[in-house]
Amino acid sequence: MQGPFLAVDWGTTNRRAWRIGAGGAPEAEEWDGRGVLSVEAGGFAAEAAALRARLGDLPMLCAGMAGSNRGWAETAYLSCPLRLEAIAAAFFWVEPGRTALLPGAAMRGKRPEVMRGEEVQALGAVAAGLVPPDALLCLPGTHCKWVEMKHGRLESFVTAMTGELFALLRDHSLLAPALAAPVAPGPAFLEGVAVSGADLLARLFEVRAASLLGGRAQEEAAACASGLLIGADVGARDVAGRDVHLLAGPPLGALYGAAIEARGGRPVAVDGAAAFLAGIGAIWSMA
Amino acid sequence: MQGPFLAVDWGTTNRRAWRIGAGGAPEAEEWDGRGVLSVEAGGFAAEAAALRARLGDLPMLCAGMAGSNRGWAETAYLSCPLRLEAIAAAFFWVEPGRTALLPGAAMRGKRPEVMRGEEVQALGAVAAGLVPPDALLCLPGTHCKWVEMKHGRLESFVTAMTGELFALLRDHSLLAPALAAPVAPGPAFLEGVAVSGADLLARLFEVRAASLLGGRAQEEAAACASGLLIGADVGARDVAGRDVHLLAGPPLGALYGAAIEARGGRPVAVDGAAAFLAGIGAIWSMA
Repeated sequence: MQGPFLAVDWGTTNRRAWRIGAGGAPEAEEWDGRGVLSVEAGGFAAEAAALRARLGDLPMLCAGMAGSNRGWAETAYLSCPLRLEAIAAAFFWVEPGRTALLPGAAMRGKRPEVMRGEEVQALGAVAAGLVPPDALLCLPGTHCKWVEMKHGRLESFVTAMTGELFALLRDHSLLAPALAAPVAPGPAFLEGVAVSGADLLARLFEVRAASLLGGRAQEEAAACASGLLIGADVGARDVAGRDVHLLAGPPLGALYGAAIEARGGRPVAVDGAAAFLAGIGAIWSMA
Repeated sequence: MQGPFLAVDWGTTNRRAWRIGAGGAPEAEEWDGRGVLSVEAGGFAAEAAALRARLGDLPMLCAGMAGSNRGWAETAYLSCPLRLEAIAAAFFWVEPGRTALLPGAAMRGKRPEVMRGEEVQALGAVAAGLVPPDALLCLPGTHCKWVEMKHGRLESFVTAMTGELFALLRDHSLLAPALAAPVAPGPAFLEGVAVSGADLLARLFEVRAASLLGGRAQEEAAACASGLLIGADVGARDVAGRDVHLLAGPPLGALYGAAIEARGGRPVAVDGAAAFLAGIGAIWSMA
């Protein structure tokens, strides 16, 4: 396809949309909380119309959870290893010629995995030269994605429920009162990372015990718990001695960066939005 | 102390109370959901009066969370190693001569730990001859307690947030729709136990991925997630080749028993109520 279009990264809780000009550069952008969970069933066409009213009456390409079973319509999961060309060949037109949803990515072996949206970022990062064709990428969030790129293809990936588990503990658990403080990558966080190698279920309870016994300042509990979870996540990956290309905003990026360094890896910051735009632009031009 | 009394095991969500006769045997019993979380601040004296109205107007001894910072009054944590005599010497009289709360147990080293109530069961189990004086005890629940007894003393313990984490995932997470089914110690549970040794955060996400990709029957997801959590808990303990004295009711007891066997341990069922009554009876007679 040629010419301007609207590119949408439609996540579970957030949504980011751009108008891409005829030359391929972004001309307008918006970011809001209209992720798929906030759109009622049957409400996606109206959402798309509202996006067009604000950003321009153009064809629209939606990556991410809009193509999930909680989204506009369920699209396929393409198997890894995966290239941009395969994604471009699998448009799902929910409004013929007007609005297409992209497929997701999956692994169907002994360790089943699914992904919706991050594959565009990962493949786009390589396409734009932001990361080398053989690279380990880390995309933290509610579900942290670890992606291995090989010869420019998305070779394999792993998903860790790190962010969601921290949110569950902070919002609903007996630890909740202790976890309200903001988290910084300081000594309490690194202490959590250091002991996160084994027995996560007991280490988390120790955060509460330390507070009750007065052994740790209340404001350090959240940082320690975050260090335990992010440390367990990073510690289960093969980061030692490697560049880890980190696609994350400042708060999570700093925490994952510190944990990756503590485990002997080298965090390398990559602009996640630039990677997404490179990926979806390439898909549009290939389709 | 001599003579009849009321023994109360006052937990976070449940409460069990007995009238103990002059000869030391239980004469009446009740079990309800009036754990400390369901009693408003200032409401404990009225709860005790209601218990006396039903079970008898006798002195009352309360173990467990009634002595916590969310209970009637906060009692001390006694350091391990711990004997029944030390507990009997630390009554906290909230109604002088009428109602006493027991202290909790704690470890204050590098791995801080706290416990309220299970120490009475563990020491009572030894006092009654239900377990040997050197033994490993497992008390599953919202927070699973693993207790090492040595020469009849409570030497050390570890707490794992296993049950609470499963409840958080079942009630509040993206896995929730997949985790509603009842859990039995069948093949899906044992599969979870088998792979639980590493990368718990990613293994939990695989439960969701397997459901989305159709690789596992929906009703097996809850059993697999439970196996992952209980397997991670048991796998972090030193159970291989050992008797593990299991103080648990049928559903959790069967799951922990299966996981302990899968890790090379020998589960030995112990009557938790009998252990508690032996412990609190001994404390009463020593005080």
